Amino acid sequence: MTPSNPRATIVGIGLIGGSLALALRERGWRVSAVDPEPVRLARAQELGAIDAEGFDPEADVVFVATPVGQIPSAVAEALAATDAVVTDVGGVKATVVDAVDSARFVGGHPMAGSEQEGLEGASADLFDGAVWVLTPVEDTDPEAFTLVRSIVTSLGAEVVEVAPERHDQLVAVVSHVPHLTAAALMSLAAGRAEEQAGLLRLAAGGFRDMTRIASGHPGIWPDVCVANRHAIVGAVDDLVTALGGLRDRIDNEDRLGLFEILADARAARNSLPTRAVRPGDLAEVRVPITDRPGELATITTLSTEVEVNIYDIEIDHSAEGPKGVLVLIVDARLAERLVGGLMANGYRPSWNPLG
Amino acid sequence: MTPSNPRATIVGIGLIGGSLALALRERGWRVSAVDPEPVRLARAQELGAIDAEGFDPEADVVFVATPVGQIPSAVAEALAATDAVVTDVGGVKATVVDAVDSARFVGGHPMAGSEQEGLEGASADLFDGAVWVLTPVEDTDPEAFTLVRSIVTSLGAEVVEVAPERHDQLVAVVSHVPHLTAAALMSLAAGRAEEQAGLLRLAAGGFRDMTRIASGHPGIWPDVCVANRHAIVGAVDDLVTALGGLRDRIDNEDRLGLFEILADARAARNSLPTRAVRPGDLAEVRVPITDRPGELATITTLSTEVEVNIYDIEIDHSAEGPKGVLVLIVDARLAERLVGGLMANGYRPSWNPLG
Repeated sequence: MTPSNPRATIVGIGLIGGSLALALRERGWRVSAVDPEPVRLARAQELGAIDAEGFDPEADVVFVATPVGQIPSAVAEALAATDAVVTDVGGVKATVVDAVDSARFVGGHPMAGSEQEGLEGASADLFDGAVWVLTPVEDTDPEAFTLVRSIVTSLGAEVVEVAPERHDQLVAVVSHVPHLTAAALMSLAAGRAEEQAGLLRLAAGGFRDMTRIASGHPGIWPDVCVANRHAIVGAVDDLVTALGGLRDRIDNEDRLGLFEILADARAARNSLPTRAVRPGDLAEVRVPITDRPGELATITTLSTEVEVNIYDIEIDHSAEGPKGVLVLIVDARLAERLVGGLMANGYRPSWNPLG
Repeated sequence: MTPSNPRATIVGIGLIGGSLALALRERGWRVSAVDPEPVRLARAQELGAIDAEGFDPEADVVFVATPVGQIPSAVAEALAATDAVVTDVGGVKATVVDAVDSARFVGGHPMAGSEQEGLEGASADLFDGAVWVLTPVEDTDPEAFTLVRSIVTSLGAEVVEVAPERHDQLVAVVSHVPHLTAAALMSLAAGRAEEQAGLLRLAAGGFRDMTRIASGHPGIWPDVCVANRHAIVGAVDDLVTALGGLRDRIDNEDRLGLFEILADARAARNSLPTRAVRPGDLAEVRVPITDRPGELATITTLSTEVEVNIYDIEIDHSAEGPKGVLVLIVDARLAERLVGGLMANGYRPSWNPLG
């Protein structure tokens, strides 16, 4: 499906654009880049991320990886400068798709990021294992869609196809509004404890988990939120309604009604799909720990000794106090071996298969 | 401060009551227990948690560890049955303190819990390192307060003294309302994705973090929420106001106003006190990882090899996609040694001192 001497232009050579450039060149593409900052283009050449500067008139595809507010004009420019299929990587889709009137355009959003920012954080394997949303609409040329899908699949991403509005509603609910809520909760707690900051030590692990995403740099959030304002306003209103429903049940001492909502939420949370697609079956091993120095090293070293790989690790601090539960995600076929080793060392682990 | 032949009665012999019984007996106390379930009392005897059943008329202290709704009547019963100082362990304080009219009563709330439930999960070291809130009021006998403080301190807990209403407002904000919010967010997401559950794969790590506390059994939550309804209703209203403020800024495209709120929340989150009190200085080492099998074992084993204890571990999934950052909390004096070992093995860690 990919052209035989494939050529691409990347508009905006930051973290995502730079990673795309590296990933495409690694797969034999000729890559040019457009960016308002000459110094960034020079650095991209230095890093071996691009072959040339400017639009490639013979490009098969143009990836627009600018900040969200600049995408519609950058897409229009790309459509005018080339005959290529044009796609973007913006975190908000409906405003972009509505603004562009071309069968050659396919909206996209790779769900990938990095601790590092900008071109220096770019890496050829950024999209390996990521979900990449594509949002074709009725007028989209099926061949344009097929081309973009085959390219992003070749980068190791898994394509999920949804309508632009639906994408925006979902990311509002699973990403934008949670971020805003974490900030609101943190402000509330900081305000209540301001005379005596030490009182925030009453905050259990659950509060830390719930506000963790508020600890990142605000960065692109204001732009993203404004671009997705319709979906966010709708989702905030729905969240406020849901909170109001819980509030009223509590105020009316409706314990059963409250229990039912919490039980439904629990069922939904426990069936949340796991983050990454994995080969084989996985199991969750839960080990109560006492948060003592050396205990983590003991357990992880024990896992290594019994040759059980740990796929994921977290400490569940949901219970109040200094105690926690170390949660290890391992190959289900090896879980019993790990549990046996842990029990032999005085731990009281439990385990159950996932999904 | 503790009496020389100390005697205690525990009312309600579940997880907290059972742990109290074990911890007190370990320290030479004679412990009796009162519980509506004879089978639980028998089991407590079997486990060596108690010496006798019923109120001890010579008890120095009675700990009331019943479900929250039964505390006022259980406290009244304990005051009538003994001349002891009476304290409780309920998660809500104002309603209890208001209902009890006795200088011999001291309200309390140990911030401790466990993965296990009930008497079987009880452990003598449950309170070791925990914060234990005490809520004396004007009429509380100073000697009663001093006795309770010295006992809970002897169990390894750290006493924090606050007014009952203030305790309730704080736990509403840092525990009860976050729990309700996690449930509301989860319901919202489940509702939006109901036709196509796979779309929840778009949920980034931040969403998982924010909804984790909704995955626990509703258990005592309805009772606790109803008992703390005044503080919760107030905190939910404040949260709704804060969310409304964010919503309006987004709707008005007020990027700067939004940025300021997010930046303030970030500063507050980053100065949240660490969970446990630790000797010495700690540092945070951040290691970008690619979520590949074996990578965690490699890094934790490397830490063991260079003799750097890991005090806490988490994977920061805040960035979208399958990538993450392994966050290790270690002794600040050893952080450079760990960072050196990691770099020698091809990782790109960064580190900074905490607090």
